[in-house]
Amino acid sequence: MGFWKSFFSSSDTASTQTQFEADAIGAASSRTGSSSRIFFSTDREIDLYELEDLCDAVGWSRRPMRKVKKAIEHSFLVASMWQQRGNSSRLIGFARATSDHAFNATIWDVVVHPEFQSKGLGKALMRYVIKQLRSDDISNITLFADPQVVNFYRRMGFMSDPEGIKGMFWYPD
Amino acid sequence: MGFWKSFFSSSDTASTQTQFEADAIGAASSRTGSSSRIFFSTDREIDLYELEDLCDAVGWSRRPMRKVKKAIEHSFLVASMWQQRGNSSRLIGFARATSDHAFNATIWDVVVHPEFQSKGLGKALMRYVIKQLRSDDISNITLFADPQVVNFYRRMGFMSDPEGIKGMFWYPD
Repeated sequence: MGFWKSFFSSSDTASTQTQFEADAIGAASSRTGSSSRIFFSTDREIDLYELEDLCDAVGWSRRPMRKVKKAIEHSFLVASMWQQRGNSSRLIGFARATSDHAFNATIWDVVVHPEFQSKGLGKALMRYVIKQLRSDDISNITLFADPQVVNFYRRMGFMSDPEGIKGMFWYPD
Repeated sequence: MGFWKSFFSSSDTASTQTQFEADAIGAASSRTGSSSRIFFSTDREIDLYELEDLCDAVGWSRRPMRKVKKAIEHSFLVASMWQQRGNSSRLIGFARATSDHAFNATIWDVVVHPEFQSKGLGKALMRYVIKQLRSDDISNITLFADPQVVNFYRRMGFMSDPEGIKGMFWYPD
């Protein structure tokens, strides 16, 4: 938690941003030996076919592209992670959040391409998402975690069922 | 669940709406003996002071009105429940939902005035919220329930931790 405290207490957004890139470059280059650069964005346009390929790569069920487009348009935050090599960049991670722009945000669809997993990039992507939401003064950041990633989020400071609060779902039959 | 199935399978929105009012009137008049009418709305303007009074009545911590206004403006659904007597109406219940307008909605700030609790009106308000979200083709309806209302939502068909999915929270220090 020490890192988090110092990270979020930084008042210099620009240098934090740079640090973010540097961290990710370090993570990528030290482990893959490639000369590529990893960067994050909240405003880079997402090619829906490229996003579908990314989601296919982790085995998610396909969703109608029209609805994915609508969901992205109506998300408060759309964060993407890219690998840049020369002039071309490839979408390697994605997350989005719905929000009331004031109190709460809920993070959905966190995905990192399998080739880029286990390099600290999922953590870097989530740190980036949290940083963006915090910069918009959102204080209650929530998500619904599948069992296999509960510990990943716990290590990032997320708590499950704090004070007995339960995440609940209603599905149509 | 039989009721839910028949309720949501109705293709006649107008008659469902009427049924909703009738249910609520029945619930209110049979239990309070008053001649008042209870009705629901998604578009009636909310007086922020009246909403604050309602939240005060259930003991919620006060929140900055400017942020409450912003949160309401950026909610996908704002549902209110009113008691009408003659020409005057009183806000007696409230709920709102954030959403990506496509897949997910998350319900926040569900409140029923203490004088109107234990009359089936909380359930009627939630049924109204779910019906509205379903009519917008939202299939994944979520919320975070305090321990004392988990069973209330369970009885309404909400599941906690389905397939081990955990609701998780991140708060700033």
